[in-house]
Amino acid sequence: MLAPEQETRPAVRPFLAITKQFAAGTATPRDFLDACLVEFANREKDVGAFVTFDIEGARAAADASTARWKAGKPASPIDGMPMGIKDIIETADMPTEMGSPLFAGWRSEKDAACVSALRQAGAVILGKTVTTEFAATQPRGTRNPHNLEHTPGGSSSGSAAAVGCGMASAALGTQVIASTIRPASYCGCYGYKPSVNALNREGCHDYQSQSCTGVIAATLEDTWQVAFEIVTRVGGDAGTPGLIGPATCPAPTRPKRLAFLETAGWAIAEPAAKALMQETLQRLKQNGVAVSTRHDDAAIDAVETAIADAHPLSNRINGFETRWFLRGAYQRDPEKLSSFMRERLVESEALTLADYRATLAERARIRALYGNLAGGFDGCLALAAGGPAPRGIASSGNAPSAVPSSLLGVPALSLPLFEIDGMPLGLQIIGFFNEDARAFALAGWLRDHLGRAGH
Amino acid sequence: MLAPEQETRPAVRPFLAITKQFAAGTATPRDFLDACLVEFANREKDVGAFVTFDIEGARAAADASTARWKAGKPASPIDGMPMGIKDIIETADMPTEMGSPLFAGWRSEKDAACVSALRQAGAVILGKTVTTEFAATQPRGTRNPHNLEHTPGGSSSGSAAAVGCGMASAALGTQVIASTIRPASYCGCYGYKPSVNALNREGCHDYQSQSCTGVIAATLEDTWQVAFEIVTRVGGDAGTPGLIGPATCPAPTRPKRLAFLETAGWAIAEPAAKALMQETLQRLKQNGVAVSTRHDDAAIDAVETAIADAHPLSNRINGFETRWFLRGAYQRDPEKLSSFMRERLVESEALTLADYRATLAERARIRALYGNLAGGFDGCLALAAGGPAPRGIASSGNAPSAVPSSLLGVPALSLPLFEIDGMPLGLQIIGFFNEDARAFALAGWLRDHLGRAGH
Repeated sequence: MLAPEQETRPAVRPFLAITKQFAAGTATPRDFLDACLVEFANREKDVGAFVTFDIEGARAAADASTARWKAGKPASPIDGMPMGIKDIIETADMPTEMGSPLFAGWRSEKDAACVSALRQAGAVILGKTVTTEFAATQPRGTRNPHNLEHTPGGSSSGSAAAVGCGMASAALGTQVIASTIRPASYCGCYGYKPSVNALNREGCHDYQSQSCTGVIAATLEDTWQVAFEIVTRVGGDAGTPGLIGPATCPAPTRPKRLAFLETAGWAIAEPAAKALMQETLQRLKQNGVAVSTRHDDAAIDAVETAIADAHPLSNRINGFETRWFLRGAYQRDPEKLSSFMRERLVESEALTLADYRATLAERARIRALYGNLAGGFDGCLALAAGGPAPRGIASSGNAPSAVPSSLLGVPALSLPLFEIDGMPLGLQIIGFFNEDARAFALAGWLRDHLGRAGH
Repeated sequence: MLAPEQETRPAVRPFLAITKQFAAGTATPRDFLDACLVEFANREKDVGAFVTFDIEGARAAADASTARWKAGKPASPIDGMPMGIKDIIETADMPTEMGSPLFAGWRSEKDAACVSALRQAGAVILGKTVTTEFAATQPRGTRNPHNLEHTPGGSSSGSAAAVGCGMASAALGTQVIASTIRPASYCGCYGYKPSVNALNREGCHDYQSQSCTGVIAATLEDTWQVAFEIVTRVGGDAGTPGLIGPATCPAPTRPKRLAFLETAGWAIAEPAAKALMQETLQRLKQNGVAVSTRHDDAAIDAVETAIADAHPLSNRINGFETRWFLRGAYQRDPEKLSSFMRERLVESEALTLADYRATLAERARIRALYGNLAGGFDGCLALAAGGPAPRGIASSGNAPSAVPSSLLGVPALSLPLFEIDGMPLGLQIIGFFNEDARAFALAGWLRDHLGRAGH
């Protein structure tokens, strides 16, 4: 059932489409920014998407972009794009507070690699978006623009909230568990967590081995373009090839065969979400796309079994990788760490290097198992979350639907195609390692052929 | 020819040997620190090894260590070890200035992973040691304790100078080209550059894909122990197994067959250095160790050919990986970047992502070629540098002997076994990926059976 368009709803602000007008001289990046600033003025006091907002800097950047478009020399296709930067990511001209009072006002004195790339590409950096404490669990007050009583998700809370109501066209997020896919799903944006290492993380304080810097944006094309403009300038993590794919969003490609992954999220998903997912699978079959599940395919069943513990496995890996940092934070001032973080520190102090190595080996085994699906399927589908954003802002929601792609190190996309009771929910695509472009091609086809569905 | 011991020469300060006295109560970490402080008082004004020196903090840490040893509960075998931390590595209680006026007084507000581990192991952090600008080329005034008119090498200049004259028992360095092996060679210390990723680099601002955090120390056993105490607490780089090996320095093991690598350094090495190396190879043969070279082994010759361009290849990789950072530094204040760095920035701006990927592929090819030697040889030998530290402190010396292990991502050790005209020179061991323990076992045997040789 298609959801009716409602004008009063928060709306995303697509960017690439408008640049034709920039080129033709019928609109300017400065005009476009001003529209974002109106939205910011109207909604930020309620939504709380930003920690730092640099109106003057943004205007100056938009004016410079306007001049480049007028001269017919935009720095890139995203020249003039208003963007937010998750406050776990370093910016030379603004503090990077990491969602923690321990880093209030702290300055890196440099841009992260991805921010450096975006500036070079002409993006207009609006400010720093709210992150949960150290990009983990503890929320920092941001509200969902679709309903202020609901969480925007986390940890990239402010990035998704800002994009979800058009304060920005796109924003950077990061993800080690569910931190890009979940808030994108909750806020009605496109969300993209790339293959692990595909976008340079230097200067993003989310350095765990399965962490990724990701993109939240208004459209699929905007999402790809932001990622491409980063990788072409600063690569992936040092020593890796970085995101592989074309200079513009891969063309929609009809899939032949898809795998549906329940993930551990299925057991706790809301009935309406499950119904939407099942209707989608039916419609795909009616469209001639073969869809397999754990109930009819042994390889998928093996993957489902292997990823059932994706969350605790991820927590163990993340725990060993971050405990030295948390210990130092605790020693500086235990009162400035959330009780959640203090508990995580206690748990992870018990781990040994041998435990860690064993968990890495288990992760490698699961990744190889998942890789077996790449030959037989064009991609996997799953819910991006177990339902729309839950009520309340003390929790950023559940993670089990989103965590498998983190553990697997593979690309994931949340497409804002579902809606339940007026709140958005994402259809998730889980792709294959370093085949991010293939996931985008599939996403484009699904968007074009499924459209939006609601209950 | 054995070099006579001269009491007036700078002497390193071994640590593990003295801990028997700590355990017996006949000496204390505080006494040991005080001896370092005397050396510091006598020599630092000339040598200039430290950027920041925290006497009170060191005394407090040594007193706490003394109490632990008295209670029979040292935190680790290196509890009480006086150490320097290269000023490219973050410390919560001191600035991290990176050898650049752009970061004068800059504070990370956290310890790097390796520093966190060392504190937990009870090490006494004396201060931050001088690094060349951003751990690259431009020296920052440190002098060689063996002769103040000569360079200590770089980029870990202060770490090697401090250990070389016993201000500290050990210090952390980093290396992406020659920055640990070369200064260790010049200053008469043991130097260890591990397998790439083997020691956690988080918080060490040397993040290039072939960068490593390394150890410079008074003895081989001290060197291993420092590395082990780091890895057992914080692992290697996130997602990797980290340094593999026993809880104490691997026992000396007689090699059967060694490969001698000329490297690109041989062509510019001093005659006296080449003579020492050749005598060493002769003595090994007399000891029944088979030694092969490019002139009698095709696999070695293939490696020599492949690593001939190790330095320019490394520069290309490093250039792509750091140009965004250098560009940001330039934009902040071009006058605060050395002319060397400005030139490097211009050169690397011309690189494309495709160039970078091609260079990574070439590096992978060379690494595989080198890996072929692991089955046939117990390790490789080379000069650690083309001669002792050259006169003058405006340059940190030549790199071609030390750079191959960086490109190859394999462990390297500099053993202070050679001497020319009263100045130290290292014998280099180049090992195999993740077989660092094997390189230490070989190093111990060479030290025990070759002794020191001089011209």
